[in-house]
Amino acid sequence: MAKEKKMVEAITSMEEDFAQWYTDIVKKAELVEYSGIKGCMIIRPAGYAIWELIQKELDRRFKETGVENVYMPMFIPESLLNKEKDHVEGFAPEVAWVTHGGGEKLQERLCVRPTSETLFCDFYAKIIGSYRDLPKVYNQWCSVVRWEKTTRPFLRSMEFLWQEGHTAHATAEEAEARTIQMLNLYADFCEEVLAIPMVRGRKTDKEKFAGAEATYTIEALMHDGKALQSGTSHNFGDGFAKAFGIQYTDKENKLQYVHQTSWGMTTRLIGAVIMVHGDNSGLVLPPAIAPIQAVIIPVRQDKEGVLDKAYELGTVLKGFRVKVDDSDKSPGWKFAEHEMRGVPLRIEIGPKDIEANQAVIARRDTNEKITVSLNELEAKVGELLATMQKEMLERARVHRDAHTYSATNMEEMMDVAENKSGFIKAMWCGDVACEEALKEKAGVTSRCMPFAQEEIAKTCVCCGKPAKALVYWGKAY
Amino acid sequence: MAKEKKMVEAITSMEEDFAQWYTDIVKKAELVEYSGIKGCMIIRPAGYAIWELIQKELDRRFKETGVENVYMPMFIPESLLNKEKDHVEGFAPEVAWVTHGGGEKLQERLCVRPTSETLFCDFYAKIIGSYRDLPKVYNQWCSVVRWEKTTRPFLRSMEFLWQEGHTAHATAEEAEARTIQMLNLYADFCEEVLAIPMVRGRKTDKEKFAGAEATYTIEALMHDGKALQSGTSHNFGDGFAKAFGIQYTDKENKLQYVHQTSWGMTTRLIGAVIMVHGDNSGLVLPPAIAPIQAVIIPVRQDKEGVLDKAYELGTVLKGFRVKVDDSDKSPGWKFAEHEMRGVPLRIEIGPKDIEANQAVIARRDTNEKITVSLNELEAKVGELLATMQKEMLERARVHRDAHTYSATNMEEMMDVAENKSGFIKAMWCGDVACEEALKEKAGVTSRCMPFAQEEIAKTCVCCGKPAKALVYWGKAY
Repeated sequence: MAKEKKMVEAITSMEEDFAQWYTDIVKKAELVEYSGIKGCMIIRPAGYAIWELIQKELDRRFKETGVENVYMPMFIPESLLNKEKDHVEGFAPEVAWVTHGGGEKLQERLCVRPTSETLFCDFYAKIIGSYRDLPKVYNQWCSVVRWEKTTRPFLRSMEFLWQEGHTAHATAEEAEARTIQMLNLYADFCEEVLAIPMVRGRKTDKEKFAGAEATYTIEALMHDGKALQSGTSHNFGDGFAKAFGIQYTDKENKLQYVHQTSWGMTTRLIGAVIMVHGDNSGLVLPPAIAPIQAVIIPVRQDKEGVLDKAYELGTVLKGFRVKVDDSDKSPGWKFAEHEMRGVPLRIEIGPKDIEANQAVIARRDTNEKITVSLNELEAKVGELLATMQKEMLERARVHRDAHTYSATNMEEMMDVAENKSGFIKAMWCGDVACEEALKEKAGVTSRCMPFAQEEIAKTCVCCGKPAKALVYWGKAY
Repeated sequence: MAKEKKMVEAITSMEEDFAQWYTDIVKKAELVEYSGIKGCMIIRPAGYAIWELIQKELDRRFKETGVENVYMPMFIPESLLNKEKDHVEGFAPEVAWVTHGGGEKLQERLCVRPTSETLFCDFYAKIIGSYRDLPKVYNQWCSVVRWEKTTRPFLRSMEFLWQEGHTAHATAEEAEARTIQMLNLYADFCEEVLAIPMVRGRKTDKEKFAGAEATYTIEALMHDGKALQSGTSHNFGDGFAKAFGIQYTDKENKLQYVHQTSWGMTTRLIGAVIMVHGDNSGLVLPPAIAPIQAVIIPVRQDKEGVLDKAYELGTVLKGFRVKVDDSDKSPGWKFAEHEMRGVPLRIEIGPKDIEANQAVIARRDTNEKITVSLNELEAKVGELLATMQKEMLERARVHRDAHTYSATNMEEMMDVAENKSGFIKAMWCGDVACEEALKEKAGVTSRCMPFAQEEIAKTCVCCGKPAKALVYWGKAY
C-alpha cells in the first residue's frame, strides 16, 4: 500500500505547481520520454496511441470534405524558401540546415521543413494549368522542425507531428470558404472528440501567419487559466501564387492566379487534453480518444474463476477498446496505474461480485462508483462512456466560462490580468501599438477577434479611441 | 479518338525499354512528381492512397502480434550514431548532416535518421530495467534519408517512407522467433494483399544488415526478370545491447543483456506492384490495395437517366471503394485514364444497358468483358474482385517459376546469366570469394539462402568445393 500511494504522491499537485504537475503526468503516464537531443521527444505507446486516434478521426473528417493526402519531401532548398518574402522572414530564424550529404558539402543548403507552403507552391505551379485542375485540396501528415529555445513536451518541441493542408482555388471566395470550413472542422473536432470547448475567431495582423492575408484560430483555456492556440487556418489570397507563378487558364482562356489556403493541427492537442481534463491523480482521457476505454481489473485473481470471468467480460465488451489487466500486480497498484493513464472506466470484478452476478464500475472523471448487473454491463459501459464524453465537455465549458472576464478600461484590464487567470474580453481600436502596450503593461496578448462579436464598450480598452472589434486577450502557452 | 490514343501511346512499351516504361507509368498514373531536390519525390494522391492502404493492413497485422507504435526523433547526434562500430560503418557514408539550427552552428552535428537502431537502443537502455519490462515490441511509421547517387521513384530515393520495428527480448530464442515471425508476416502480406509471391530466406554474411547477426529477406521477381528485395528482418543478438548497455535483471536477480531485432518495409513495395502487375496500358492494381476498386463510367451521359443510374449503381456498390466518373470527358478518354491508373474493374452503363437492366464490367488484368444483370451487380463485383486478387497472385507465381533457372556449374551459370533473366538457383560453398567472383563474372548477387533448401548439386557452382547451401542468385534493383 505504501508503494501504491507513492506512485500517486509522485505527482506534484496542480495547485502547487501547474508546470511541474504537467511534466509529472507526461512522464508518469508514460506518454513521452526525453531523447538525447534537447527539445526532441520520444512519443511512447501510451502517447502515440492517442495521436493515432486523433489522426484517424481527423483524417476521416478531412476526407469527407474532399481532402486528398500526399507526401512532400522533408527538405526545402534555401532558394525555394526565400521565394516569398514575409514567409522566409517568419521562418528562416528557426530552421535547421543540412549542409552535408553523402560525405560531401552541398552546393545549396537544404532546410528541414518547418512547414511546407513553399514546396506545395512549387508543386502546384507544375501541376496546375487549367480551371479543370482546380481546386486542389491536399494534406500531409508528417513531422516538422522548428528550432525552439525553450521546449515542453507536446506544447512546444523542436520536432513535432502534425498535418498541414494546402489548397489552391480558382476564386478568392472559394479560398475564404475553405479557410473557414477547416477552422470549423477543427473546432467541431476538438469539442466533439477531445471534449475541449473552443473560441473561434480571427487573429490580428500582428499575430497572423508569415505570408498570410488572414489567419483564423481556435483558442482553448487550460485548467490554469492560460490560453492554448489549438489550430489555425490561413487564407493566403494570391500572394504565394504571385511569388511562385501559380496560374491557370479560366473558362474564357484568360490567365489567372490561384487563391490558396493552409491549415494545421499538431501533437500539441495532446498537451491540451492533459491540461484541460487532467487532475491530481493523473491523466483523464475523453472516451473518444482513450486507447483503452475500459480496464477490467480482477480482484482476488488467485481465486478460482475470477480470471476466467474477467476474460469473459472482456469478450462481452469487445465492441469497446477494452483491456483485462491480468498482471501479477496488486489491485490497488493497478487502480493507481490506470488512473494515472486516464482510462475512462475501471471495472472491478471479484468473487463476491461474481456470486451476485455484478461488477463495480468506477468513472475516472468523477470517481463515481456504480454497481451493475453483468447482464447489463455492455449497455451500461456504452452509456457511461457517452455520458462521460458529454459531461467532460460541459465541465470544461463551465470552467472556461467561469474564467472568462471582461474589461472596459485599462484599470480593469490591469486588475484582471494581475488577479485572475483566464480569457479577458475587451474592445480594441485595431492599432498594433495598443496590442504592444497591453503586452508590456498587462502581460497579455490578443488571442483572437471572435466570430461571435459583442460590443461591451464603445472604446478601445487601451487608448480610449473608438473600438473596432472585441478581442479575447490572455496569457498563452 | 486521336487524343485518347495519344494518352496510351505515351507509354513506352515494356518490351522496348522496361526502365522507361516504369518511369512513364509512375508519371502518367500520377503516382509521383519530381521535386526540386534530386532524389526526393512527391507522392501524389493516387500514389499516397496506395501507401495508406498498405499501411492500414500492415499495421493491423502488426498489432495482432502485439506491436505498439511510437515516434522517435528524426535526428541522431553523431556520437550516438558512432556507438555501434559495424552500424556506423554501414550508414555514415550515406547520411545527411544538420550542422546549423536557429541561426547558430551546432556543437555536435546531427544526422537525419537513415534508420533508427541507435535511437531505439538509447531509449531501451533508459526504460528497460527488469524482466517485467520485456519484451518491447515497438514500431514506427516515418520517413528516412539515405544519400543515394542514382535514384528512381519508389525503388531508390533519397528520402522514403517506411516502417521500422525494433524489439528487445529476454532470450536469444525469443529474438530469433520474432525475427522469423515478422519475415513471414511480411511475406504473407505481400502474397495475400499485393499478390506478389515471395522467396523467403536468409541473406549471406556479405549481404546482411550493418550490425546484424542474421538478416532474413523476402525476394520478388519483377516482370523484367530482375529481383527486388522487398522486406528484411534482422536478428541483432546482443551486439547492440552490449554497445549501448541495455541490461535487465532476470528472475534470479542477475544482470543480462537483451536480444534485439529490427524489421522494415518501405514505399518500394509500390514499385514492386508496378513492376510485377503493370502492362503496356499502365498500372494494374490488386483489388486489396486499389484506392478505387471499381469505376462506373456512364456512356452517353447526356441522355436522360444515364447519370442518375450511374449514381444509383454507385450507391448499390457502396460496400466497395467505388467512384462514378461523371466528368465531362469522353467515355474513351475515361477508359484510358482509369486503365492507366490500374482500377481493377470498369463498369459501363449506357441507355441500352439500362433498357436491358444490365451493365458491362471490364476486368483490368485480363480485359475480359462480362455483361451482368443489375440485380446481381453487387455480388458479381465482389466475386470478380476476389477472383482477380487470386489470379493476379497465381499469374505472378507462374511468371516467377517460369523465370527461375538452375545452374550446377560455372558454364551453366554464365549461360543463364547472359541469355535469360530471372532467379538462378545454384549451390554455394559459403565463401565470400565465390560471391564476389559470381558478381564479377556473371553479374549476379546472392539474393538469399531460401528456407526451402534443395540439393541440386553437391558442389559450389563457382569453386567446385563441397556446397553448404542452395542460394537464389540474380540481378537486382
